[in-house]
Amino acid sequence: MRHWNTWGHEDSEYAMEFGGEGLQQLANLIGPGKPLPAATLAEVIDRVPASRLPEHPLVNHDAEVRVRHARGQSFPDLMAMHSGDPGAFPDGVAFPESSEDVRELLKYAADNEIALIPYGGGTSVVGHINPNKGDPRPVLTVDMARMSALIALDKESQLATIGAGASGPQIEELLQREGYTLGHFPQSWELSTLGGWVASRSSGQQSLCYGRIEQLFAGGTIETPAGTLEIPAVPASSAGPDIREMVLGSEGRMGIITEVKARVSPLPEQESFHVVFFPDWEAGMATARELAQQRTQLSMIRLSNVTETAMLLMSGADADSLAVLHGELSRHGIGDTRVMMTFGVTGSTEQCNAALGQTTKCFERHGGVADVFQLGERWAHGRFRAPYLREILWNAGFAVDTMETAVDWAKVNEAMQGIEAAIAGALADEGEKMIVYSHLSHVYGQGSSIYTTYLFRCADSYAETYRRWQKVKAAGAEQIVAFGGTISHQHGVGADHRSYLPAEKGVLGIAAIRNLCQLFDPRGQLNPGKLLPDEEAQ
Amino acid sequence: MRHWNTWGHEDSEYAMEFGGEGLQQLANLIGPGKPLPAATLAEVIDRVPASRLPEHPLVNHDAEVRVRHARGQSFPDLMAMHSGDPGAFPDGVAFPESSEDVRELLKYAADNEIALIPYGGGTSVVGHINPNKGDPRPVLTVDMARMSALIALDKESQLATIGAGASGPQIEELLQREGYTLGHFPQSWELSTLGGWVASRSSGQQSLCYGRIEQLFAGGTIETPAGTLEIPAVPASSAGPDIREMVLGSEGRMGIITEVKARVSPLPEQESFHVVFFPDWEAGMATARELAQQRTQLSMIRLSNVTETAMLLMSGADADSLAVLHGELSRHGIGDTRVMMTFGVTGSTEQCNAALGQTTKCFERHGGVADVFQLGERWAHGRFRAPYLREILWNAGFAVDTMETAVDWAKVNEAMQGIEAAIAGALADEGEKMIVYSHLSHVYGQGSSIYTTYLFRCADSYAETYRRWQKVKAAGAEQIVAFGGTISHQHGVGADHRSYLPAEKGVLGIAAIRNLCQLFDPRGQLNPGKLLPDEEAQ
Repeated sequence: MRHWNTWGHEDSEYAMEFGGEGLQQLANLIGPGKPLPAATLAEVIDRVPASRLPEHPLVNHDAEVRVRHARGQSFPDLMAMHSGDPGAFPDGVAFPESSEDVRELLKYAADNEIALIPYGGGTSVVGHINPNKGDPRPVLTVDMARMSALIALDKESQLATIGAGASGPQIEELLQREGYTLGHFPQSWELSTLGGWVASRSSGQQSLCYGRIEQLFAGGTIETPAGTLEIPAVPASSAGPDIREMVLGSEGRMGIITEVKARVSPLPEQESFHVVFFPDWEAGMATARELAQQRTQLSMIRLSNVTETAMLLMSGADADSLAVLHGELSRHGIGDTRVMMTFGVTGSTEQCNAALGQTTKCFERHGGVADVFQLGERWAHGRFRAPYLREILWNAGFAVDTMETAVDWAKVNEAMQGIEAAIAGALADEGEKMIVYSHLSHVYGQGSSIYTTYLFRCADSYAETYRRWQKVKAAGAEQIVAFGGTISHQHGVGADHRSYLPAEKGVLGIAAIRNLCQLFDPRGQLNPGKLLPDEEAQ
Repeated sequence: MRHWNTWGHEDSEYAMEFGGEGLQQLANLIGPGKPLPAATLAEVIDRVPASRLPEHPLVNHDAEVRVRHARGQSFPDLMAMHSGDPGAFPDGVAFPESSEDVRELLKYAADNEIALIPYGGGTSVVGHINPNKGDPRPVLTVDMARMSALIALDKESQLATIGAGASGPQIEELLQREGYTLGHFPQSWELSTLGGWVASRSSGQQSLCYGRIEQLFAGGTIETPAGTLEIPAVPASSAGPDIREMVLGSEGRMGIITEVKARVSPLPEQESFHVVFFPDWEAGMATARELAQQRTQLSMIRLSNVTETAMLLMSGADADSLAVLHGELSRHGIGDTRVMMTFGVTGSTEQCNAALGQTTKCFERHGGVADVFQLGERWAHGRFRAPYLREILWNAGFAVDTMETAVDWAKVNEAMQGIEAAIAGALADEGEKMIVYSHLSHVYGQGSSIYTTYLFRCADSYAETYRRWQKVKAAGAEQIVAFGGTISHQHGVGADHRSYLPAEKGVLGIAAIRNLCQLFDPRGQLNPGKLLPDEEAQ
């Protein structure tokens, strides 16, 4: 059973332990946590108002179902659900089983002035799937979970047609049975879905090998109020603007993605993950840049900065092992300014060995030292666990959230420092300390994503904790904009980033996106209030 | 000096010889050529009507300049220019030197109801830059040649800002001086421009390493009637639909691209091109597919089919060398069904050697035999020559043109055979023979482009020769559509492919593109009649 108010499944293999010692260390750094009281599911169900939706055989009005579809997985969502007041509930939830069902729901919505929220895994961290409080129209959430089949697999062309509601594990089970993989592993993989990845331009941890969802999405079917949009899957084309790229990032505003033709790969002959340490951030960053720009055939590169390296080692290893590691690194002249790079190779044995040989020489040039604790494989083992940790910290009275962007290499260092400094100081006027650290992942020839994690203590109330979060988020986002970074490299826009979108797209760019939304959804019924800025919930 | 009625520069290093023996061999295959009389430049200048454009300091009304901007480089363009009747001339040509100039021209066009044709190298092979005959508005061609500077080069982020009018050689000269390359080498490279590549979604011969122009175009500036569209260059983003991908393939309908931020690469440590022969088409195709799907780090793969292999060998080597090669291949069991694969490696010495090792093993599995005549390097030496050959053949009374598409691997063989058969039989009712052959290039995991070349004899008049061409073109294009291929993998849509676009984009896709054109160019003044189907020249 999935948790109703936080990330994950109750019996998930990715659920994790994080013990008293780690929490004590946090308290030592920023003060003791202040847990806030959590509402029960029964209490929240009691608050669900009567549905405003007219009866329809596809529409479920059940209060618990509506509670479970009220919010995504952002930090404000977590708070809202724990507080017992999600703000708004959908008036009902539909679980279509076919494109015909989806078209029927679009007609039902048109006939009855209903707002529709396309819903994949409900894992948005930027408010994509939350009903707007005060929307005068009834709101129907369309949960795509029942459209999750492998519809076709063309092994010769490595093209799979898959229901858009298929989750990460479902997709991999369907494909791996046939010897294939999609290779798309965002941290949300356990719950997020193919359609959601397309709608929000997701990037997986091994994008360096398999590509972002933009490269994996070859075409598909989108049901829109203006009709069915069929995007044929061709390997590449110069025939005019790319319709795929209009749907990618459309965040439910243009239609409901029902089927995706995805580019798949045979399961790799070999795959392994490794860790290497560098004497300082500059050496690590130069290495990451060199590997990306040299097109070294790796499947992932993640470079933790000094603080993140310390935090990961502290939380991931016992004191004895840590002492051994520190001693080993010291012998190579690597001390407290150490940074940790996690990387992966994926492909044929020949390719992996060639890539490992090339990286080894590159590491030597930059003073890198390989770890001896299989930390890379440990990373792979725990790669989907972080969302579970948030709940443990929350229950101990600590708030944790992340921000991310991508900037050119020439700005990476300055932008990371600027974002961290702004976040670190955001609550200084309240005398609250902050833990802030970052890593680079998803490296490109042009630049890199920057992923910053921050922890602070909950305040005395939900409202005050939310206010603190808003201050921190705004401080970080303003730095991202100031450094010319994208407001999101992998989380999307949703509700939380929409006011920052004009800085990136410009007046004409926003007009172009709005224009497309209006073409596909003339009455503004699909996911109103998301993606585009300065727009009333219609 | 550039030729006024055909491809290329008079003193180009890529101009080629093609002697009497080759022409005799062609005549043996399809009958003697029938040269058609060619008009002189003076004759065509005499036909240029008075300009309908109001005076403006940026507008050149000179008749010769207008002749030289009347047509692109498609086969119909070649015929029209040689016939002396291009159909329509621009009323004037402007050579802006700055974005201010371009904005001034847009204002002039708005104030005076003028149609504007953005013009890069004038190398379109699908009618992109031809004025529409009978357009009631005066037509101004905007030649971007004077906006060709390297404006900025960020070596750390490998990002160059370049004037959109820069040609292939200009770009490489500017960048290579600094140790960098764009790595974009379409066959039109000698004359085509950066802005044209973006507007028409160009693909270069080494796209397997450097990517298509879609991957190289990081952002830039587009002057539109609705205002300036600035697309910031970020390494990657999940913040909504990608505005870049609306401009890519916009074919001058949305605005005039003035500056491009392009992703560049350091000059490679090593680069080489090679040829390998396979016993038959199936073996060659299986190899190409395996190399693409395995992500082997090559920079190009081109696989000629049986007929193309024979034609290339016949035209590229003397009889003695050919006998030696045939003998060598025979010893390995490779006979008349031989096919030739040209491939390249680009990167560090380590990477190139690793890739060469991997390909060698792959070739062995498929019965491949390496050539001994440095045919790969010969290919590289002559890679920009083919357009010059067309004129030689034309002057001997032979018509040559190409068609191209991309389809999934599962359809490559059938589609190639279908396209070739349709073309080969297109003039059978007139008793005319045809030479048809194809190659695969631009291979992807999902599929491959198919590039088909065909030769036929000119008829007794220009009109009859054009009619023949139309029959052949339609026969091939209908097969492309029937096999679900894109109507163009690398040439674009222009005038010649626009009636086929709905089959690929669908009703809603066409509506989306048309909507964007109307947003950026509300009065339909930019390149009217191109890209979109079923539209009157407004």
